[in-house]
Amino acid sequence: MTEPSIPVAEVLAANEAFYAAFAAGDLAAMDRVWAGDNPVSCLHPGWPIMLGRQRVMASWQMILSNPPSIRHEDAQVLTYDRLALVVCREVIGTSVLTASNLFVPEGPTWRMAHHQACPAGERDTVTDAGRPPHAVH
Amino acid sequence: MTEPSIPVAEVLAANEAFYAAFAAGDLAAMDRVWAGDNPVSCLHPGWPIMLGRQRVMASWQMILSNPPSIRHEDAQVLTYDRLALVVCREVIGTSVLTASNLFVPEGPTWRMAHHQACPAGERDTVTDAGRPPHAVH
Repeated sequence: MTEPSIPVAEVLAANEAFYAAFAAGDLAAMDRVWAGDNPVSCLHPGWPIMLGRQRVMASWQMILSNPPSIRHEDAQVLTYDRLALVVCREVIGTSVLTASNLFVPEGPTWRMAHHQACPAGERDTVTDAGRPPHAVH
Repeated sequence: MTEPSIPVAEVLAANEAFYAAFAAGDLAAMDRVWAGDNPVSCLHPGWPIMLGRQRVMASWQMILSNPPSIRHEDAQVLTYDRLALVVCREVIGTSVLTASNLFVPEGPTWRMAHHQACPAGERDTVTDAGRPPHAVH
């Protein structure tokens, strides 16, 4: 069920901060985006599984040394008990990917615990008819 | 931080049940795997974003009508406050994918809230040196 206690706007802001750091190639900002007190993992398309903060940040150091022109669209927040998942599309040039971004609260902020992205075939989001995306279940 | 209250064995069993239903093309079993009281989403490789239980199960009905020979390996559980993420590799013929599988407790069982899979380049899991995967952060 949707937990009304989850501040969706704050989660979306954390998701925005992730893509802002990504697009800017800003490693320090990307470091602030990622969780420090929770387990982290990252599944970049075409990469092996990355587990642990050091490995995840090393992967971002490599990626952000030559950042792509990336933007995201159609972010949808799915909320759980003290955790939020954002699914959205990433647009990199003519490529479209779908992404899973998991956020956890750490103190007053929401920080990223997991990211996966993968090339998508269609630029659509398909939802159950007649239900707003935040409430689907 | 790792929450010792999360029963890792039960989460892994739920992950096993997901891949068993996948490999068997068993839609009824797949239906039991997925959450009923929490928001669900699914990002199949090359597909649009699927939000909501009806859409997610319709996608599985299509996929399971001609199930691939799939197995999974190297499942790692990352635990949060009343939620668990399993990352693993999927092996389908000669293809290797990485997968994110999110599980939530519903009553006495752990059920899938989100799945994403994507072709991987390397058949490795890379972790922070000297730390067991369950405790990385």
